[in-house]
Amino acid sequence: MTSDSMDYQKILEGIYSAVEPLKGVGKVADYIPALALVAPDKFGMCINTIDGDVYLINDACERFSIQSISKVFTLAMCLSLKGEALWNRVGKEPSGTAFNSLVQLEVENGIPRNPFMNAGALVLADILLTSLEDPEQEFLAFVRELCGSESVDYNREVALSERKCAYLNAAIVNMLKYHKTIECDVERVLQFYLLTCSLEMNCKELAQAFLAFANHKKTFSYAGVSLTSSQVKRMNAVMQTCGFYDEAGEFSYLVGLPGKSGVGGGIAAIYPLRYSVAVWSPRLNAKGNSVMGMKALELLTTETAESIF
Amino acid sequence: MTSDSMDYQKILEGIYSAVEPLKGVGKVADYIPALALVAPDKFGMCINTIDGDVYLINDACERFSIQSISKVFTLAMCLSLKGEALWNRVGKEPSGTAFNSLVQLEVENGIPRNPFMNAGALVLADILLTSLEDPEQEFLAFVRELCGSESVDYNREVALSERKCAYLNAAIVNMLKYHKTIECDVERVLQFYLLTCSLEMNCKELAQAFLAFANHKKTFSYAGVSLTSSQVKRMNAVMQTCGFYDEAGEFSYLVGLPGKSGVGGGIAAIYPLRYSVAVWSPRLNAKGNSVMGMKALELLTTETAESIF
Amino acid sequence: MTSDSMDYQKILEGIYSAVEPLKGVGKVADYIPALALVAPDKFGMCINTIDGDVYLINDACERFSIQSISKVFTLAMCLSLKGEALWNRVGKEPSGTAFNSLVQLEVENGIPRNPFMNAGALVLADILLTSLEDPEQEFLAFVRELCGSESVDYNREVALSERKCAYLNAAIVNMLKYHKTIECDVERVLQFYLLTCSLEMNCKELAQAFLAFANHKKTFSYAGVSLTSSQVKRMNAVMQTCGFYDEAGEFSYLVGLPGKSGVGGGIAAIYPLRYSVAVWSPRLNAKGNSVMGMKALELLTTETAESIF
Amino acid sequence: MTSDSMDYQKILEGIYSAVEPLKGVGKVADYIPALALVAPDKFGMCINTIDGDVYLINDACERFSIQSISKVFTLAMCLSLKGEALWNRVGKEPSGTAFNSLVQLEVENGIPRNPFMNAGALVLADILLTSLEDPEQEFLAFVRELCGSESVDYNREVALSERKCAYLNAAIVNMLKYHKTIECDVERVLQFYLLTCSLEMNCKELAQAFLAFANHKKTFSYAGVSLTSSQVKRMNAVMQTCGFYDEAGEFSYLVGLPGKSGVGGGIAAIYPLRYSVAVWSPRLNAKGNSVMGMKALELLTTETAESIF
Repeated sequence: MTSDSMDYQKILEGIYSAVEPLKGVGKVADYIPALALVAPDKFGMCINTIDGDVYLINDACERFSIQSISKVFTLAMCLSLKGEALWNRVGKEPSGTAFNSLVQLEVENGIPRNPFMNAGALVLADILLTSLEDPEQEFLAFVRELCGSESVDYNREVALSERKCAYLNAAIVNMLKYHKTIECDVERVLQFYLLTCSLEMNCKELAQAFLAFANHKKTFSYAGVSLTSSQVKRMNAVMQTCGFYDEAGEFSYLVGLPGKSGVGGGIAAIYPLRYSVAVWSPRLNAKGNSVMGMKALELLTTETAESIF
Repeated sequence: MTSDSMDYQKILEGIYSAVEPLKGVGKVADYIPALALVAPDKFGMCINTIDGDVYLINDACERFSIQSISKVFTLAMCLSLKGEALWNRVGKEPSGTAFNSLVQLEVENGIPRNPFMNAGALVLADILLTSLEDPEQEFLAFVRELCGSESVDYNREVALSERKCAYLNAAIVNMLKYHKTIECDVERVLQFYLLTCSLEMNCKELAQAFLAFANHKKTFSYAGVSLTSSQVKRMNAVMQTCGFYDEAGEFSYLVGLPGKSGVGGGIAAIYPLRYSVAVWSPRLNAKGNSVMGMKALELLTTETAESIF
Repeated sequence: MTSDSMDYQKILEGIYSAVEPLKGVGKVADYIPALALVAPDKFGMCINTIDGDVYLINDACERFSIQSISKVFTLAMCLSLKGEALWNRVGKEPSGTAFNSLVQLEVENGIPRNPFMNAGALVLADILLTSLEDPEQEFLAFVRELCGSESVDYNREVALSERKCAYLNAAIVNMLKYHKTIECDVERVLQFYLLTCSLEMNCKELAQAFLAFANHKKTFSYAGVSLTSSQVKRMNAVMQTCGFYDEAGEFSYLVGLPGKSGVGGGIAAIYPLRYSVAVWSPRLNAKGNSVMGMKALELLTTETAESIF
Repeated sequence: MTSDSMDYQKILEGIYSAVEPLKGVGKVADYIPALALVAPDKFGMCINTIDGDVYLINDACERFSIQSISKVFTLAMCLSLKGEALWNRVGKEPSGTAFNSLVQLEVENGIPRNPFMNAGALVLADILLTSLEDPEQEFLAFVRELCGSESVDYNREVALSERKCAYLNAAIVNMLKYHKTIECDVERVLQFYLLTCSLEMNCKELAQAFLAFANHKKTFSYAGVSLTSSQVKRMNAVMQTCGFYDEAGEFSYLVGLPGKSGVGGGIAAIYPLRYSVAVWSPRLNAKGNSVMGMKALELLTTETAESIF
């Protein structure tokens, strides 16, 4: 069975039947008050092939807080702005520790290990703030063009609600400032970071946005953000090694696709030159990744017998 | 240009021209006395396509100490013997620290983070010692069949020479025993581990051996070691995330292929369903990976514009 | 020679001659802007015997920023307020790491190892804020009565100047809040902590204040802060093991008296039932302790051949 | 009540009544097979005043394995041999971590934080092995003269039994050798270290041996090991800050005397210029210190209202 002849709609239906029994397993991220209110057993999934076909199931058109998935968009902008020099300010090695670890920061003098740890994404936020004229609008414009939807927007209420209890992120951003890894005011960096995390998108929009990473042979140029094919592939590599906190190895092992998860329960992943996929279900496992989402992606690559490996 | 029409011989020649100026950069691993004697500026490379073509250049037929590359073979045997239960004894997450870190062991109660850290491979050695009747011969038989060469063998002198200064590995194996992560006598585990690392192979043999991992649709069964297609792909995933010590992210970023390096200067990598590749050059960078080898592989995927991403 | 017959004035003069050549060695703490302005080669010293004699030399009557020495006063208030229950919120073991280490906090779930690390003192500040009606005035009243000087006061300008670059302390207080180790608003805790550190006293006042710890057989009761003899002795024990950041062992070895240092260059110490001593000189060694101050105290116990050991 | 008029015999009797209810609390160190056989509820105590009086109670004349208390004797010999240069090979700061921590070793390049951690004592063992002609006999001769008993001896059976399961110490000694902190063969260092730990003494002999540290005004010269008064006091300081693993702060707080404990259940401590005291009871608390022993010493300084603070 080749990719071309895959009946993705049928596969999505099979996946949904298989993951439905997992409803009720895991816990919604309750440390962000606004996220705790979401219906915990939602499930949506969307596949976009590079041929232009779109396959949806269930709640695929319901928006949710994409949270850390936004780090992929921030990274794309920063890589476009700074090129390889970006890696002087943030590493690209897997962290080997929980996503919020301060230990690593202290040991390595304030250089975050990779851009998908909170510390790394805070550095990216600082780069956007110091490089762009209107960071909020330019970031939004980029994501809107990438996903083809003008109505995608920040949820400022979520960002504000998160700020009120963002003690760990506040600790990290102060640590970065102490190490002179960021230039802007700590509060401004933290609030802009939280704002980017508050973006609300649905699976359909996410899959569309990630299609640009899957289809790296197509010109990547959206709202002034341009990447070469090689840069897009390298971003995929970073997603592969660093996209799932300290479960990167597990995801690589079970699913075998580059991707990025968020504590809102979303996961976006790509099969280079084949398809992009987004899945959403709010309940998380102990590592902070969506329970049904992880299983759905594992089933997808098992069912199709296709992965990057 | 499709993979089928690639002129790999010409690509190898171009790569060699490009990396030749790096001669003299980096240092041979001198902590193993027997390795310090090797001619430091050797360079060999071999590509095996899944269609059966073999492309060689320079010292591709000269054997060297494969050292940590042997961990891939050990892992294959253990996965065949234990199945998924193997992962109760060793993790599969990138370590985020240098390959010989004891810190991680202490923090995580003696369970090594992945099978390619020294600690992890020592656990694998213990598994083989407790599971096989004649571990030395069975391991050798497996590698010989995998690479199609009956003359591949251990270099017992290298293993003995390494034992004399293997203080860090001795510390690790004692730590594992303290945490009851290994069952056998510490000295026996250490010596068997060093023996597997002492295997001598050339690039041609290594590329042939790794072809079995690249071609995961073909039945994997060698000298009684059998893996399913899914298991082979999962091994590739572990190579991707954990195969290059604390440079896994860098290799993934620059090269984009699953692989494994050794301090003897060898690197073996695969492009699933396309080819396997082995490269050897003794001088190492600060992270313990071959300088010319890393560059050669980067050039290979850049030149062909093909990687798993 | 017994303590009674000691000619402390002569000893002070000898000490001053001996430490004078160290002028110019070490660096003033320049991370606090207001401290960087102090004349770097000041030197003052004062001994108060429990018989009531006072011996002064040089700049002993010039006030300076006592910084971390204030933690002794905060601890006394908290111990008076909470008794042994205090130790549920902060440990009393030496930290074994630099005074500002976040690593230890992360590993031990937000419970600071001792009250003299910044993290521990921030917890003490939180306790005062939640226990007292007017923490600023009550803390000041206590210190004033302890040192017998109504003109001792905060330097609010120093506290404000320090807040502007207190990124590491801001990181720590957020980390504590994240771990629910403090109850108050992070900003309030941080500012109150910095205010207590901004106290300005001279050696004479400091020696007088510490006499109450040296003379533990006398009733300890100042401005409503009461401690038993046993509690005072236990505070002395905590000073001994934790009073000098990661140089506690060195100070104990060379000087052999319980005490507390501050980055303003002050050190206060006690010889139980004999005398208290305060010394001040702004230049610090790499560990953050006064160069001339450490040497002066070493000479004091060497010259008198008396220490607690 | 002055020290001279203290009725120490009566105090010992009161202490015994008070600690007797603790019988059965805590666990004998069972990781050393030979120690697991001891009667767990033994209790002995002995006080030696510098005036030459000796006070005994219960099992004070029954020998036990002194284990880590031997590190004080090793330190005395090394300090006599090397003087202050000793501190280039081992630190004197409290470790802030459990006594067997490898983390600290890795971070600090193989220099143990203090001589009373296992790593530090292994370095001391290496120093004796490289400095003395007959280390076993000279060490024994020193201890025998110090405690005034020619029948004190090693228990070679205990040392051998301990070697069989000394995986953690074996890890540490290999780590030290890797960092070139020790010169001798790892096995020789480990076995000599375990031999010194296997010394068997009773409370009477231990108290007599420690009297030399309490009475630092008397010439310290035993079997060729000579220390100045200042050196003895400095050893007392090291005992104070480092003598109780990661419970040094707690012991200092509750007892307030320099001392050293061992996992055999013994503790020796001193009140400088007053008395030495040894106590023994095999059951240990979670930190590895004798339950009844710690309580007995706390009661001693509480009852006499005397400590170094």
